[in-house]
Amino acid sequence: MQHTLDWVIRHAGKIYRNDEAIVDGDIRYTFGQFEERVNRLAQALLTAGVGYRDRVAVLMNNSHRYLELHFAVPCVGAIIVPVNTRLAPAEMQYIIEDSGAKLLIVDEINSRAGTALGSLVTRVIKAPEEYESLVGAAANIALPGPRSENDAAGLYYTGGTTGPSKGVVITHRNHMAHADMVASGMAYAAGKPTLYVFPLFHLGAICGIYDATWRGCKQVFVGPMDPGLLLETIEKERIHHTAMVPTLINFMINHPDLARRDLSSLKYMAHGAAPIAPDLCRRAVAALKCKFVQAYGMSEACGIVTLLHDEQDLLDTEKVRSAGRATAGAEVKICRTDGSLADTREIGEILLRSPAVMVGYWNKPKETAEVLQDDWYRSGDMGYLDEEQYLYVVDRNKDMIISGGENVYSVEVEAALATHPAVFECAVVGIPDAKWGEAVHAVVVKTPGQEASEAELIAHCRRSIAGYKCPKSVHFQVEALPKSALGKILKRDIRAPYWVGQGRNVG
Amino acid sequence: MQHTLDWVIRHAGKIYRNDEAIVDGDIRYTFGQFEERVNRLAQALLTAGVGYRDRVAVLMNNSHRYLELHFAVPCVGAIIVPVNTRLAPAEMQYIIEDSGAKLLIVDEINSRAGTALGSLVTRVIKAPEEYESLVGAAANIALPGPRSENDAAGLYYTGGTTGPSKGVVITHRNHMAHADMVASGMAYAAGKPTLYVFPLFHLGAICGIYDATWRGCKQVFVGPMDPGLLLETIEKERIHHTAMVPTLINFMINHPDLARRDLSSLKYMAHGAAPIAPDLCRRAVAALKCKFVQAYGMSEACGIVTLLHDEQDLLDTEKVRSAGRATAGAEVKICRTDGSLADTREIGEILLRSPAVMVGYWNKPKETAEVLQDDWYRSGDMGYLDEEQYLYVVDRNKDMIISGGENVYSVEVEAALATHPAVFECAVVGIPDAKWGEAVHAVVVKTPGQEASEAELIAHCRRSIAGYKCPKSVHFQVEALPKSALGKILKRDIRAPYWVGQGRNVG
Repeated sequence: MQHTLDWVIRHAGKIYRNDEAIVDGDIRYTFGQFEERVNRLAQALLTAGVGYRDRVAVLMNNSHRYLELHFAVPCVGAIIVPVNTRLAPAEMQYIIEDSGAKLLIVDEINSRAGTALGSLVTRVIKAPEEYESLVGAAANIALPGPRSENDAAGLYYTGGTTGPSKGVVITHRNHMAHADMVASGMAYAAGKPTLYVFPLFHLGAICGIYDATWRGCKQVFVGPMDPGLLLETIEKERIHHTAMVPTLINFMINHPDLARRDLSSLKYMAHGAAPIAPDLCRRAVAALKCKFVQAYGMSEACGIVTLLHDEQDLLDTEKVRSAGRATAGAEVKICRTDGSLADTREIGEILLRSPAVMVGYWNKPKETAEVLQDDWYRSGDMGYLDEEQYLYVVDRNKDMIISGGENVYSVEVEAALATHPAVFECAVVGIPDAKWGEAVHAVVVKTPGQEASEAELIAHCRRSIAGYKCPKSVHFQVEALPKSALGKILKRDIRAPYWVGQGRNVG
Repeated sequence: MQHTLDWVIRHAGKIYRNDEAIVDGDIRYTFGQFEERVNRLAQALLTAGVGYRDRVAVLMNNSHRYLELHFAVPCVGAIIVPVNTRLAPAEMQYIIEDSGAKLLIVDEINSRAGTALGSLVTRVIKAPEEYESLVGAAANIALPGPRSENDAAGLYYTGGTTGPSKGVVITHRNHMAHADMVASGMAYAAGKPTLYVFPLFHLGAICGIYDATWRGCKQVFVGPMDPGLLLETIEKERIHHTAMVPTLINFMINHPDLARRDLSSLKYMAHGAAPIAPDLCRRAVAALKCKFVQAYGMSEACGIVTLLHDEQDLLDTEKVRSAGRATAGAEVKICRTDGSLADTREIGEILLRSPAVMVGYWNKPKETAEVLQDDWYRSGDMGYLDEEQYLYVVDRNKDMIISGGENVYSVEVEAALATHPAVFECAVVGIPDAKWGEAVHAVVVKTPGQEASEAELIAHCRRSIAGYKCPKSVHFQVEALPKSALGKILKRDIRAPYWVGQGRNVG
C-alpha cells in the first residue's frame, strides 16, 4: 500500500466536498472545486510534457494556485521546486540549474525574475492567464499519483542561513508522515479556518498545507503582509489558527485597529524560527487571548520536529525558553562531538530521526553522508534536553563563537542585549581577533527615539552574563538586519564582511 | 526509516517519563516504569528463546501485563497471537495449531484452558508469578525492534461472525498507520485518562492501546464488567474517554449509583460493532453529558475505518443511523457485484483501503486473494454512502436474506422488531423455504415482564416495513443470544441448526 499525496486531496475532495476550502481575495472554492482544479492542473502538466521525476520550478507569491501546484506536481510523479522570491538572480539561477528544472511557473509579480530564468528551462507558464487557460482546457481526471511513496515530491532549497543552498529531497511518505506527526499539535480541523502568512516556497509553511487539506480546514490567503489587513482577515473569515514571525505579531498587537476588530475566533497562534520574547508573548497573549505554540524544525525534517504548547501558561517558567518536546513520531537526542550521548542539560549537537526526515540532498552524496548517519539527521544546531525532554536550542553550531577557548552562544548574548530598551533588534557574531581567535561582536539596530552607547550596552550585558560572553565591540546600523523568508536573521551575511580574506568558513 | 512499535513505547517512556501510565487495581506505573517493564519483558522473551517471527500466544483477561505483551512481543521481532478467552477448547486449539505458536502465556483465571493447550507449545509461562519473576530477573535494555516495519506484529484471529476463524496478519506499519489515522478522532492525550473495557485479545480494543500510549494517555483497567464498578472508576480516576458496547452503556445509566457519582471528567464515549439505538443514545447523553462517537471497522483493517462524531447532536437526523465517515488516511467505496462503482445511496459491498489494512490471512493465500484485490479490501459488508460520504452499513453480505428473489437486510427487520417494547433482543436470519428459497425468521428474547405473540410481532413489523421483509415466523427463547467478544450477535450460530443437511454455507 502506497500512501501518497494524492490521498490527501482525494480525501478532502470527497469528505468535505461542499465545504469551503480556499479563500483568496474574491476567489472562494469548495474542496470539490479545489480537487477538480488540481485534477485539471495535473492533466495540463502531463499534456505539457511533464514526466516522471521531472522538476517543475515555481516562482510565485502566495496564492491558491501555489497550493494547487503543491498537489498537482507531485501527484503526476514529478518534483516541485519552489524558488524563494527574495533571492538574487544568480541564486535563482543556481536553483534552476542545480535542480535541472524543465518547467518554470511564474506569476505576474515575479515576471521580471522569471523572464531572466526563461532561457534555462524548456517552458515558462505564466500565472494567472496562461495557467488558467491550461487548467480550463484540461480534463477533470483523477490524479494518477506517483509510482511509489518513496518518490520525491519536492526539492526544497535550504534558506541559506549556513553554507551554500542545497536541495532537500522530500518524498511523498515524508510529507504524509509529517502531516500525521503534527496533526494533534496544530489542531487543523474542518470548520476551523487557517490563515497563511508564511511564504509557500518554504517548508516551514508548506508542511502545514497537506495536514490542513487532509483535515478539511478552510485555507485563507492574504496579499501583502499588512498588520491591519491581517486583523481584518482574522475577523472577517473567523480565523481559528495562524502562524507568523514574532515581529509581525508585535506589529499586529500594536496596530490601531486592534481594539475594533473581533478576534474571538482566533485560538492558536503558532510561531517558529526563534523563541518569542516573554515580554512580547505576554503582551500578545493579553491582546489576542489565544494559545501560543512554538515550533522548531528545519527543511531537512520536512518542517516541524518539536512543539512547545501553551506558551501562554509557561511565561514565568524556564520552559518558555525551550522549543518544546518531540512530536509523536519524531525522536531527538543530544550528542557530544565524539558521538556519545550527552547528559541531561549538557550542551551538544541536536540529532533527530523520524519518517519525515529527508532522504538526502539533491545530487550531493557527500553533503548527505555528512548529515545523515544511521537514520539520524545531524542538525548542526547546538542545544540540550532538560529532565522532561524539553529541548533548548542554544545556537547554530556555525554561529557559536569560540573566544579564548571558551564557547560563546550568540543567542545567549543576543538575549542579554535585547533586554535593553534601546535595542530594537541585534545579532551577535564572532569576528577575527589576533589574541582570542574570535571576538564577540554585536550589530544593533536602535529602537526609534531611544539612545545607547557601545559602552552602555556592553555594561548592560555584564549585569546578566559572564564577562567573556559580553560583546567586545558594538556596531550600530540604521537599516534592518538581513533576514530569511521565515524571519530568521542571516548571521552569515552579517559575519561575511569581517572575514574577507581570513579563511573562516563563514557558513 | 522504519517506523515500528518500539518507537511508541520509547517516545512515551521519554516524553511522559514521570506521568502516570497504568492503573490496574493497586498497581500504578509511570510511563518510565511501563517502558522499563516492557524492556525487561522483551529481554525475558529473548532469553526464553523467542526468535524472529516466532508466534507467542496469549490467553489472558485484561491487565497491564497484557498491555506489556502487546509491546514486548512485536518489539523483539516476534508475533503476538491473542486468544479469545471465551472460545471452546477446540477453537483455542485450532488457533494455537494454525499459528504454530511456540510459547503460551496464560493468567490464573484461564489456567484450566491453558493447561489443556500446554502440550501444543514448547513452553507455557504463567502470570502473574512466573511472568513477574522473569521480568524481575531480566535486564532493562532498550527494545531491539523488529527487522522491518513490514514485519508482522500480530495474528488476530477473526471473531468468527462469518466462516471459520482466520489469522489476520497485521504489520508494525499497519499499527503505526492506524494509530495516526484515529489520533484526532479519538482524542487520546496526556492528562486525559482512558478506561479499557473491551477485551485486549480483540483488535477493536488493541488498536487503541498504541495510540493511547503514544499520546501519553493514562490507561486504566477494571476487573469484572460491573456497571457499578465502572461508574466508581470513572469518578475515581477522572476518566476522560472510554469505549463499550451499547448494552453496557444501558446498564450503567440505569445503575442506582449513577446519581451519586461525579462523572464530569467523562468527555468521550465511543462504541462500535453496531449503531446505538437513538432512544438509548438520547438517555445516555442525558445521563453522561458527553460526546458520543461510533466506530465502524474490522480486524482486517486493524480496527477503525469510519467514525461518526457527535452522535449526540445527530439524534434527530438520518446520520445517526450511519457509521460516520472515513478517517483521514482511509478510503471507502461501494461496489456492485460486477465490481463497478455504485451510485450514491445505492447498496453494494463496502470496500476499503488504507495503510492499516492487513497484508493477508496467515497461511491462507486463497482466502487472502478473495478479499484483497488491488490494495482494496472487500469487507463482505453491505452498505451505501450518502451525498456527504456518510457510510450506512445495511448488513453483512452473508446475513442478507434472499427471499423470492428480493434482498432482505436482516438489520432492517431487526430494527423494526426492536421498537416493540416486548423485544429485549432479537436476530433475524434466513431459513430454508421450499417456496421462497429462504424465509425471514426471527429469534426473540422477551423483555422481562412483557408479553407478545408471534402474530403480534409480525403485525408490528408490517406497520413500518414492506410485507416481504416481515418475519414469516418467530421463535422465542429464554437464554441470551450468542455474542462475539465485542457484543456482536453471532447469527451464524443462530442460523446453523436450521440449515443442517441443506447445503447453504451458513458462514
